[in-house]
Amino acid sequence: MTQTADHPRIRLKPKANARGLRHGFPWVYANDIVTDRRTRKIPAGALAVLEDDKRAPIALVAVNPDSKIMCRVLDRDLDVQLDAAWFETRLRRALEMRERLFDAPYYRLIHAEADGFPGVIIDRFGDACVIQPNAAWAEAHLETLTEALVTVTGVTTVLKNASGRTRGLEGLDDVNLTLRGTAPDAPLPVPMNGATYMADLTDGQKTGLFYDQRPNHAFAKRLVQPGARVLDVFSHVGGFGLAMLAGGAGQALSVDGSAAALDLATKGAEASGFADTFQTRQGDAFEVLTQLGEEGAQFDVVICDPPAFAPSRQALDAGLRAYERVARMAAALVKPGGYLGLCSCSHAADLGRFRDASSRGIGRAGRQAQLIHTGFAGPDHPQLPQLAESGYLKAVFYRL
Amino acid sequence: MTQTADHPRIRLKPKANARGLRHGFPWVYANDIVTDRRTRKIPAGALAVLEDDKRAPIALVAVNPDSKIMCRVLDRDLDVQLDAAWFETRLRRALEMRERLFDAPYYRLIHAEADGFPGVIIDRFGDACVIQPNAAWAEAHLETLTEALVTVTGVTTVLKNASGRTRGLEGLDDVNLTLRGTAPDAPLPVPMNGATYMADLTDGQKTGLFYDQRPNHAFAKRLVQPGARVLDVFSHVGGFGLAMLAGGAGQALSVDGSAAALDLATKGAEASGFADTFQTRQGDAFEVLTQLGEEGAQFDVVICDPPAFAPSRQALDAGLRAYERVARMAAALVKPGGYLGLCSCSHAADLGRFRDASSRGIGRAGRQAQLIHTGFAGPDHPQLPQLAESGYLKAVFYRL
Repeated sequence: MTQTADHPRIRLKPKANARGLRHGFPWVYANDIVTDRRTRKIPAGALAVLEDDKRAPIALVAVNPDSKIMCRVLDRDLDVQLDAAWFETRLRRALEMRERLFDAPYYRLIHAEADGFPGVIIDRFGDACVIQPNAAWAEAHLETLTEALVTVTGVTTVLKNASGRTRGLEGLDDVNLTLRGTAPDAPLPVPMNGATYMADLTDGQKTGLFYDQRPNHAFAKRLVQPGARVLDVFSHVGGFGLAMLAGGAGQALSVDGSAAALDLATKGAEASGFADTFQTRQGDAFEVLTQLGEEGAQFDVVICDPPAFAPSRQALDAGLRAYERVARMAAALVKPGGYLGLCSCSHAADLGRFRDASSRGIGRAGRQAQLIHTGFAGPDHPQLPQLAESGYLKAVFYRL
Repeated sequence: MTQTADHPRIRLKPKANARGLRHGFPWVYANDIVTDRRTRKIPAGALAVLEDDKRAPIALVAVNPDSKIMCRVLDRDLDVQLDAAWFETRLRRALEMRERLFDAPYYRLIHAEADGFPGVIIDRFGDACVIQPNAAWAEAHLETLTEALVTVTGVTTVLKNASGRTRGLEGLDDVNLTLRGTAPDAPLPVPMNGATYMADLTDGQKTGLFYDQRPNHAFAKRLVQPGARVLDVFSHVGGFGLAMLAGGAGQALSVDGSAAALDLATKGAEASGFADTFQTRQGDAFEVLTQLGEEGAQFDVVICDPPAFAPSRQALDAGLRAYERVARMAAALVKPGGYLGLCSCSHAADLGRFRDASSRGIGRAGRQAQLIHTGFAGPDHPQLPQLAESGYLKAVFYRL
């Protein structure tokens, strides 16, 4: 009970939305805070008590004076300590939902704010977890978090991935570490949608595999008739292609710029028993789409899951043009009556804008389309309702 | 080839969006058309050639001079005849997608404009189909459509359901008919998501059963732990409740205002083998929610799938308040760590507005929430990309 007194106090300006914060909004921007010499001296990652402009307390927050998001709400209870029990309670709550929704321990266990861990991502791969502590407070409590994670999940290996771009903004280093156990010396097999994927936990992108597309992979799998020929552009480690082979496709071609990703995709195809029906083509996706068009290639299902073309509002117009271009080039490769799935992981391009750009591209390819499905990230990527607009992943499926 | 000359011509005003119509927009509003004595005399349901303001032809359209949507695009080819082959081609195309996506012949076969049949709904229940010809052109060609439907699907029973509200606007009667075979004298069993539903094709709402919620039923089913206690408010014939029992729920309570719907739900529970774990409570949903609150009832999963509270723009504000109220009352009945699914079938309330109203209601109940899933109607309810904004069915799932 005496802890509260020890924390510095941070006061909101009168114009700040104290009510929103009381109702669950998780962030405080620097320009909503009364900053003085004292607040500016609070070290990154320290805890503080957030007060409204009348000095009534709102929440316990993690502070980073160098970040635009200067405070992140940690707890409504001002008297908590970030000890093992605090971490274990939140981890157990997150684990309970994943165990309910997934048959096997392969999922995003912690999805930042919505799971009560601002700025922290934890992905689970069976007996191993990869933590991305992308906020200073989490870095400061990493040992307690790691210990709690082992206690709650029973995993034997815990890795720290420090490649997150926001770590720089938080003043954190980019050094990956093995926190528990031994870093695997080979990619780990991950079962999803009836295929086996290979996750490289130490050298891969982010935490080795993207779990967010799982429900969209599952929908693509349903579109496949036995023997179908399918194309997966921007395939990374084979996400859509392997799922569609598991659905009975006769031949899948995965296209990606990264030889390392395609190597993992090929290893996944071998582990899934699809070595004979899985092909790759390395190169710039736009160039390969052009080549395939020139070759007169036609596919029953085409999926394009590009990197974020519109990562910021400034990049929105150019990004939407790129999505339109992808849609136009991909639509030309779809057989009459075939299917086209288009994905966006751009925060700035909302569903309506992305869908319109995609539909426009299909129209420019001279094709008529039915929109048959809209999908988002899976339920192991929950959102705070207050941040629901920021749902980054969108997938739209058309029949042409 | 001489058919074109026989059709009357309808000309767009210069301000009309001829380009949009050329790119797939399916409707022409009356105030975009040059109307004179001649156009006003075109009988409802007749075909015409739509021209731009320079008299260049755009499409073959079905006309209804009395409707706000005066023309509906039927074909880009001006020379087609609406004969058996024309209907069969479109039906085959629709059937191919449903057979690909569903294991059994229970689905919406034709979803109006997006399946190339403006204003026409056809639902399939095994060997029976129910047609809703909610546009004058379809009524005029009903016999050809029916014959083509039998040819393509092999169904033995075809019923006409004339209860659609838009039939009045089209100047059509409300007389149900048996077009082929014999109208079933008992509800038909329909397998979905591991449960059996009872569809009343002759006296039920619309075509007897709503297929649109199938993927959202499936998601609710995933949320259920063995033995869970679940609540399904505005249950109609037991949609969410029976699916959750199929997922292992120990007890389901279905609430609806219609005794006939609850009777079908109970019959479905019996047919599914859930007679012992399925309960109903008939009454006004708001009153029953209040009662359950007073009784201190708590559920692991609560689903509310109300009728359209915001059927029009005029009703939007009141509708959103009703959605908020449902969310607030339902949230109070969810156990800590439990799940709440909220649905809207209001055209006027888009996803963002409906989600915000729902989140606000949950907040007013004093509950914190994670948004874990957003779902829409299933792929047997395709949309034209040009009308994608009108996707009416939304389902948002929260963990509290």
